[in-house]
Amino acid sequence: MSFNLATMLRQSRLSDPGKAFCHFGDLTFSYAQVDEISGRVAASLRGLGLEPGDKVAVQLPNVPQFLFTYFGILKAGLVMVPLNPLLRAAEISYHLEDSDARLLVTFSGFAEEALKAASEVDGLATYLVTPPGETAVPDGAHHYDELYRAEDTGDLEPTNADDTAVLLYTSGTTGRPKGAELTHFQLYMNCTVGGELFGFNPADIGIAVLPLFHVFGLSSVLNVAVRYGGTLVLVPRFEAGPVLDAIERHRATIFSGVPTMYFGLLREDLESRDLSSLRVGISGGAAIPGETIREFEERVPGVVILEGYGLSETASTTTFNISAEQRKVLSIGKPLWGVEVRVVDEEDRPLPSGPEHVGEIVIRGHNVMKGYYKRPEATAEAFRGGWFHTGDLAYADEDGYLFIVDRKKDLIIRGGYNVYPREIEEVLYSHPAVDEAAVIGRPDEKFGEEVVAVVSAKAGTEVAEEEIIAYCRERLAAYKYPREIRLVPELPKGPTGKILKKELRTS
Amino acid sequence: MSFNLATMLRQSRLSDPGKAFCHFGDLTFSYAQVDEISGRVAASLRGLGLEPGDKVAVQLPNVPQFLFTYFGILKAGLVMVPLNPLLRAAEISYHLEDSDARLLVTFSGFAEEALKAASEVDGLATYLVTPPGETAVPDGAHHYDELYRAEDTGDLEPTNADDTAVLLYTSGTTGRPKGAELTHFQLYMNCTVGGELFGFNPADIGIAVLPLFHVFGLSSVLNVAVRYGGTLVLVPRFEAGPVLDAIERHRATIFSGVPTMYFGLLREDLESRDLSSLRVGISGGAAIPGETIREFEERVPGVVILEGYGLSETASTTTFNISAEQRKVLSIGKPLWGVEVRVVDEEDRPLPSGPEHVGEIVIRGHNVMKGYYKRPEATAEAFRGGWFHTGDLAYADEDGYLFIVDRKKDLIIRGGYNVYPREIEEVLYSHPAVDEAAVIGRPDEKFGEEVVAVVSAKAGTEVAEEEIIAYCRERLAAYKYPREIRLVPELPKGPTGKILKKELRTS
Repeated sequence: MSFNLATMLRQSRLSDPGKAFCHFGDLTFSYAQVDEISGRVAASLRGLGLEPGDKVAVQLPNVPQFLFTYFGILKAGLVMVPLNPLLRAAEISYHLEDSDARLLVTFSGFAEEALKAASEVDGLATYLVTPPGETAVPDGAHHYDELYRAEDTGDLEPTNADDTAVLLYTSGTTGRPKGAELTHFQLYMNCTVGGELFGFNPADIGIAVLPLFHVFGLSSVLNVAVRYGGTLVLVPRFEAGPVLDAIERHRATIFSGVPTMYFGLLREDLESRDLSSLRVGISGGAAIPGETIREFEERVPGVVILEGYGLSETASTTTFNISAEQRKVLSIGKPLWGVEVRVVDEEDRPLPSGPEHVGEIVIRGHNVMKGYYKRPEATAEAFRGGWFHTGDLAYADEDGYLFIVDRKKDLIIRGGYNVYPREIEEVLYSHPAVDEAAVIGRPDEKFGEEVVAVVSAKAGTEVAEEEIIAYCRERLAAYKYPREIRLVPELPKGPTGKILKKELRTS
Repeated sequence: MSFNLATMLRQSRLSDPGKAFCHFGDLTFSYAQVDEISGRVAASLRGLGLEPGDKVAVQLPNVPQFLFTYFGILKAGLVMVPLNPLLRAAEISYHLEDSDARLLVTFSGFAEEALKAASEVDGLATYLVTPPGETAVPDGAHHYDELYRAEDTGDLEPTNADDTAVLLYTSGTTGRPKGAELTHFQLYMNCTVGGELFGFNPADIGIAVLPLFHVFGLSSVLNVAVRYGGTLVLVPRFEAGPVLDAIERHRATIFSGVPTMYFGLLREDLESRDLSSLRVGISGGAAIPGETIREFEERVPGVVILEGYGLSETASTTTFNISAEQRKVLSIGKPLWGVEVRVVDEEDRPLPSGPEHVGEIVIRGHNVMKGYYKRPEATAEAFRGGWFHTGDLAYADEDGYLFIVDRKKDLIIRGGYNVYPREIEEVLYSHPAVDEAAVIGRPDEKFGEEVVAVVSAKAGTEVAEEEIIAYCRERLAAYKYPREIRLVPELPKGPTGKILKKELRTS
């Protein structure tokens, strides 16, 4: 019954040791190299006195050391706690303390906040990855190279399938960030079943620009690649030009991104590029407008964009549109193998199919976390009735395809009517001058809430607020169309590029 | 993290509900039917007050009710305890008591011993499967049809991956039978990885003549078929003629058996049969002689015989010969994906490769049981150093292929030399008149042990003891060849057809 997620690395190495596992700039690391280097990291971590189950926080962008550290932690039976490099000191110390982290790996380029946080946590050791050639680290910190010093024993700690492998912080629907305990089995199943859906195979070369510290990048990009022995091109930051360069240079076959990345790529001169190697674009993290799919597939022939849906707690994919033939645009698809999904009402009663039966998505199966670390109450609340409650509102059609109407917390109730921002956003995106859009509610004396659209215009275009309102009024019921348009140069986004509505509401 | 092994049935049903899951005589049950009937059994069992984790003993031959009961137990979150139909009352009551079984399902045809046993166990309910048309059952017992009465709720109990699904009794290397706790995850991984090895797919039709209450039949035949949505032909008893009839009638593609079954098939007039549908023969349970593989493949063109190795505790496959191109005849092959195998000396130190380095096979990985039920000491002993000790002696060649030399307990030590019975048996099987052979040791004053061969002759042939001794002496070192030949009409066999050396030693 023992199973260590790093078995995936070991087996892909056994199948083809010299195969490139990752490219990073001009560097390439083979499966054998990543297996050996991460074996050194594992032995070094154990040599520092860390014991199976201990937590190691990792705050790194998509660099090769992310892979070495991740697999090193797994091999040693430790628990990985991925952190966003953009966190501020107070946030970092919250995460370190909440997770009981005993060691922090971070990057010298943004170490100031991390070191400030680390100094407040008792008994925490900090290791810094530096740019090539730099060896100096501040007092009190260690250089990451020290973690290469021990010999690789080749050993994988025989963790159990249900042991926690990754503690992934998520804000969930409410409160401070909570650590979702993702197990070895859960992560194994998710990438195995997920990768099968789009036929990931050893010949595939994926662009890893989604942050690997986020569940979408970790499970659907990194884990899928290592499970099936493919190759990754690590790109530390999304910029459309360099991503297209990487696709051309490495003849990449898979691009995984959030909708805003697809928006960014579409702003480029795609027709001047050789993107013929691309076969699949995976989209997730937020709803991708139908218009974006249509345009991308038209401008990059041979690509099919497949949308999936998942959360940190479901690590990650839960539903997916399997293929161009079987997909339904605007749907998040159908549940994965072994995953049960229901749409339920406020009393957790399953709802029938049909767009008139909108309810909350609840999930059960191998892809659901063990619970929130040290949060028995939040865990019980999320799992009431044995099903994980996502906070997402959706309906199922008669074929079982799910359509998200919105996040439960994003729902606007105007004059007693439910207004789903996504529906309005879909209309806004169809306007030729709109680049990005987000619809939120603001308190209103008369209607309870009023519908507000925050919009950025495409470069080189101008558009009047009244024109957008008129455009929406023509296409939407009277209770739905936005009464206020706020034009902004750019919308605030999270680490994966997801638009942050919370910030729009408070701004 | 929840996972119920019956998910495999549910998903194969979702893929193709009308597909034949099993044939039994003139009956055929589709995936939808088996899913629905087992759902009724699950609801009935829960309706009787059984709670997740409770044990249900099942003593059935390969009949459709075996499938209904197995999946019903899994769906309800109960634990299946498969029992050999040939057990006597005292043995049955030992198993029922040791496993804390709360319910027994057995077959009216051999219910006498079971009912005697059941009457001695407090609070145990007994359900009898009867031949079609028969409805009467003895006082105190229930008819199996009662387990169809509750409505199928469609529900699968959300057991965890590491929860026990099957309690499989095995004598292990020593002592009374012990219940190996096989988990949902372990059984899922084993059939998934195992079936992949010989490319099992929905078009495959397997002959299920290996008893399903035994790990080989349960994991490599039944679980593989349901995992990949294939079809099974249930055959309750091995007889060469009817098995060949079933292959012809159903155009079976896979035959799985123990070596004695292959011996039996080879005694038939294979050339008069249309066996062209067969593509793979799986062999396990005991060493298959090279001569048998050669002859079978010659007489049934298009078939490749692939040998694997496993135990009840490793549910079941541990190593396998993947294909005709990659196999080594006489080897048990290489470890499965994610399974670690070592050959170790008496102090558990790994041995180098080479036939001169014979040691015990120890195993670690997803395919290893949780432990022996209620036997912490036996579990600790079997898992010393974190590795499961098989009691099998083997060596690895430089390519990592494993060669079993013998069971540790079957080893004969003659005059200080190790004599491995398998090696002698291999020579005996190459003799044209030998049908079956087993080599054992008997106490000897001068040498400690003396080598004895128990042999049955092929029908219509006669052979003198001296001639066999001379034949062996020509081919084996002086300290090895058998000094005594015991000619018998037939060798004693266990439920899978494996020759029982224990009985030879005591006879």
